[in-house]
Amino acid sequence: MTPVGRPVSWTGNGIRLLDQTTLPARVVHHEVTDVDALVAAVRRLAVRGAPALGAAGAFGVALAAAQAERENWDAATLTRAIGAIRDARPTALALALGVDAARQRLAHGISAVLAYADDLLEQDERTNRAIGAHGADWLLRGAARPTGTTHSTHSTHSTHSGDTDSGIGRRPLRILTHCNTGALATAGWGTALGIIRELHARGALEIVYVDETRPLLQGSRLTAWELDVEDIPHLVQVDAAAAGTIVRGLVDAAVVGADRIAANGDVANKIGTLGVALACAYARIPFVVAASASTVDPATASGDMIPIELRGGGEVLSHAGSRVAPARSRAHNPAFDVTPAHLVDALVTEHGIVEVARGQCPQPPAPSR
Amino acid sequence: MTPVGRPVSWTGNGIRLLDQTTLPARVVHHEVTDVDALVAAVRRLAVRGAPALGAAGAFGVALAAAQAERENWDAATLTRAIGAIRDARPTALALALGVDAARQRLAHGISAVLAYADDLLEQDERTNRAIGAHGADWLLRGAARPTGTTHSTHSTHSTHSGDTDSGIGRRPLRILTHCNTGALATAGWGTALGIIRELHARGALEIVYVDETRPLLQGSRLTAWELDVEDIPHLVQVDAAAAGTIVRGLVDAAVVGADRIAANGDVANKIGTLGVALACAYARIPFVVAASASTVDPATASGDMIPIELRGGGEVLSHAGSRVAPARSRAHNPAFDVTPAHLVDALVTEHGIVEVARGQCPQPPAPSR
Repeated sequence: MTPVGRPVSWTGNGIRLLDQTTLPARVVHHEVTDVDALVAAVRRLAVRGAPALGAAGAFGVALAAAQAERENWDAATLTRAIGAIRDARPTALALALGVDAARQRLAHGISAVLAYADDLLEQDERTNRAIGAHGADWLLRGAARPTGTTHSTHSTHSTHSGDTDSGIGRRPLRILTHCNTGALATAGWGTALGIIRELHARGALEIVYVDETRPLLQGSRLTAWELDVEDIPHLVQVDAAAAGTIVRGLVDAAVVGADRIAANGDVANKIGTLGVALACAYARIPFVVAASASTVDPATASGDMIPIELRGGGEVLSHAGSRVAPARSRAHNPAFDVTPAHLVDALVTEHGIVEVARGQCPQPPAPSR
Repeated sequence: MTPVGRPVSWTGNGIRLLDQTTLPARVVHHEVTDVDALVAAVRRLAVRGAPALGAAGAFGVALAAAQAERENWDAATLTRAIGAIRDARPTALALALGVDAARQRLAHGISAVLAYADDLLEQDERTNRAIGAHGADWLLRGAARPTGTTHSTHSTHSTHSGDTDSGIGRRPLRILTHCNTGALATAGWGTALGIIRELHARGALEIVYVDETRPLLQGSRLTAWELDVEDIPHLVQVDAAAAGTIVRGLVDAAVVGADRIAANGDVANKIGTLGVALACAYARIPFVVAASASTVDPATASGDMIPIELRGGGEVLSHAGSRVAPARSRAHNPAFDVTPAHLVDALVTEHGIVEVARGQCPQPPAPSR
């Protein structure tokens, strides 16, 4: 675990949540001791990120069962309460899965549910640690990008980054990342940020360029906070600066997470990821995607099949509650974009590296045992 | 002129300024009748954009001369006052040039200075109108991008935009733009936005995707306002959405302005421009730069020679006065980036089109007479 700690844990009395809505200004932990309070916390995004939500759902089943004992609920009331937790964020698949799996264990008692939730967290952290180690190994081996296939052929225009390939493995790395993929989004370590933590732990990290990640600023609010807590050197930049930072040779690689990975290796991730990938391809530096193997969805053949979630315009048109665009203006606010497989130099899962752009199958091999 | 009007004009009594700091919430015009008020208005960016600043400087000389008559200044006081206007924004070359040229005409009286300032505005508007017409002509001719040289060869990954080339010229265009290049930044028409206005006037514009343009939001605050005033359909998006919008085939071309163009055709412009250009190259849609011929600097051989202005971090780390990043975090805040010439499909000046990516010389031909 990191100094950030786990975003979700069981106190004995209820669920302890690190409130992500007040960061970085204030670090506030809430102890949630009844179902209504948990539902409210999930709805207002005090907790976010698939693994954290899965654990919150599983702990929520234990919380509901404890409240049922305390308040002598009948079975129907308990069922409704568990359903309310499950539906607190209808699009969060991990929350529903966490609730469902925990509910199956309820027949064995609250302690069985708690054991399952703790397992979820521990397994996620093990997964993230493995991702961090594999990713750091790959970057430090100095894996050069394949040439002549997916990349710009305008070598005269990438002289700024001409020393990149030879530089990797010989000096601390400069890494660009987008959005938040750290302890806050997971069980306490991180995927892309897990690789960055691992590089730092090995003394192999010079600096992190953090895209602020508009519209919700998960980069400046959350990733920068996690890096700050651990004294990891970083610079925050507007998302529009990423291409220039990459093409000018200020970073050695970009490392990002993934929301969903298609069977062909196309990657859906936070809006802005595609622009980072295109700049990396142009500058011929590695574009690395870090995610658990479960993020690869064999049922999705390619990125074309992933619907793009369009969110409300208020996130774009207002800042801190005050309107920054004309009253009649509307926004185009896609939550994520799709990066084609041939731009993904390395997909890092807990099982190892898949060099997707070289034509490797993105579906990771089965675990060795 | 557009319904927005001119950002700077002479009232008979003083200088009328459209205050760009209160847009889009409030449309406020100030009449500035003494030198101190003008200097203050320039300093707080009530007026911005090179042509508007040039005119403000020229009108400022007339304002100072009128105040000198009214208040019986001696020659030294007048000289100091004109110097204060000239130095109100030390990095704004156009302001100093406007002041210097107007001062030379002061021997012929205030009316000669006013005539010069009006000429500046009229010439800038003529330039912008010519840019608009040339740019619209070029886009509507359906100029296909050159193939096989500067673009991605991954045609299977740009099927979304596969109908783009054939679509141009047959239906209203969907255009992406970045930053503000409109009436507010110029004498009342615009460069890139001048092309967009011209397309709209010809009934050949479907919609404009407006990058919000962090950190100062010139897109959502100013460009969206100009489009709203004229009922031009538009959608505001975060800058990070530009690549996805382009690669998904939602726009037919991107049109942007330029701060400085090197002799080889490399373009320095607002941070984020390079990312737009890379996405256009990948999607094989035209990337168009619109600027007056005077923006081409023969003394700058290539973009490598253009220093990148790094601005203070507060613009990135705070929103509307409140901090959004940890107190110790610092920012990387470059004001612009450099787009290599081979990504610029068309450079549009008042003299016509230069197809830079096809190897044409970016220095525009001399006017025909």
